Amino acid sequence: MTARKPLILVVNDDGITAPGIRFLIKVMNQLGEVWVVAPDGPQSGMGHAITLESTLRCEPITIDNGPQKEFACSGTPVDCVKLAVNCILPRRPDLIVSGVNHGSNSSINVIYSGTMSAAVEGAMERIPSVGFSLLDYSWDADFAPFEKHIFKIAQTVMRSGLPMGTCLNVNIPKKSDTPVKGIKVCRQAIANWEEEFDERVDPRGRKYYWLTGTFKNYDNGEDTDEWALANNFISVVPVDIDLTAKHAIGILNQLDFEVPH
Amino acid sequence: MTARKPLILVVNDDGITAPGIRFLIKVMNQLGEVWVVAPDGPQSGMGHAITLESTLRCEPITIDNGPQKEFACSGTPVDCVKLAVNCILPRRPDLIVSGVNHGSNSSINVIYSGTMSAAVEGAMERIPSVGFSLLDYSWDADFAPFEKHIFKIAQTVMRSGLPMGTCLNVNIPKKSDTPVKGIKVCRQAIANWEEEFDERVDPRGRKYYWLTGTFKNYDNGEDTDEWALANNFISVVPVDIDLTAKHAIGILNQLDFEVPH
Repeated sequence: MTARKPLILVVNDDGITAPGIRFLIKVMNQLGEVWVVAPDGPQSGMGHAITLESTLRCEPITIDNGPQKEFACSGTPVDCVKLAVNCILPRRPDLIVSGVNHGSNSSINVIYSGTMSAAVEGAMERIPSVGFSLLDYSWDADFAPFEKHIFKIAQTVMRSGLPMGTCLNVNIPKKSDTPVKGIKVCRQAIANWEEEFDERVDPRGRKYYWLTGTFKNYDNGEDTDEWALANNFISVVPVDIDLTAKHAIGILNQLDFEVPH
Repeated sequence: MTARKPLILVVNDDGITAPGIRFLIKVMNQLGEVWVVAPDGPQSGMGHAITLESTLRCEPITIDNGPQKEFACSGTPVDCVKLAVNCILPRRPDLIVSGVNHGSNSSINVIYSGTMSAAVEGAMERIPSVGFSLLDYSWDADFAPFEKHIFKIAQTVMRSGLPMGTCLNVNIPKKSDTPVKGIKVCRQAIANWEEEFDERVDPRGRKYYWLTGTFKNYDNGEDTDEWALANNFISVVPVDIDLTAKHAIGILNQLDFEVPH
């Protein structure tokens, strides 16, 4: 009897042709039987959006000559995971990997990120799931120096599993002259975006806006993902699908919410 | 010197004309100076999506003869909050309320909900924020029996504030013959959606899908929002913007992620 190869679902939010997912597919082909179900175009910043108001398309596609099976989906990254697990894959995957994202999903970005929401959806389905992001927005970013780290993290997660209801948010420093120092398990830094809307006027005289902004890290802790990345470590943050602010329950129980009879 | 009225931002995900937000505006008009910045159409299930790939419109609009100021926005609920706070409101709001959503956002639904993502964005901006949802999907749902509860919760949050980095997820049982028993501070129940994609064929012979599913509560705890709602209480869950699974850090630190040199 031959051991069956593990089944790995690959998804992303930059779209199925993005260099980051093409790289991740190649690395995962060394670990198992790879199925790709990814958006047919860019879905950055889609967070945990799902498609309720319109229909979904999901069609087989061939992009390179690798052994993986691939499907391009009209929906969001979370739609891709739901469609893959329920309609496309031959069985439940042993691992879901999302990315490699072109740009950071550290700190508060986890909440906006389609890449990470795909991993969160995997955790909701109780499948070990990891989102990978490289701190380089360039389409020509060099992922190669991090191949062995991505391989090792995926392999470890597949072998050991993850605590139920959690997935991993892995961020990788931009390639530099010094190799990464290693991998640090971190907490999410307390940070924020200071928005700066770019207000413009269209050719018909009507106002419109582009969303832009500046990332501000307020957190001086040395146990955060921002600290790890600034110090040339790969950051690994466990992400919880239970959003309850448990520390706040006692505080809220002291407030008077009741309406007098 | 007259005390300045508190400034309240009202947002939702069902769109600016939905009965749920029209009701919420009326209640908030009793509490402060109300500004509405809400989507110009349905944005259910948009989660924490933001608009990065296209432009945003945001135009003044008059829908009824109330004292509130209103703006319809082409973007998601989170876009509405960002635009409101940065471009539209005359000063920082004292309170953000989102809803009243037509349908439940209890348990795991908090992650998919545009209504709740607007409140989460408020918490990220360090503004006291509450999302309200009624467990009735009908457009003709009766919100009136819950007016005094919504008023009291909003008033209490505005007076007392909320623990930093948290907002409230308030769910209200559907109107029934027995009045609600009161308000319970809860944790998010561990639950899931079992997807059932509705696969169809279009007039040109190509497959497409509609996302549907069944909500499954696996959590028998009597401290959950699902328990409270099933027992005719209004549930109040504090939601954390820090997604770190703190209990998982020690477990992950035992795993071997390092690549041998």
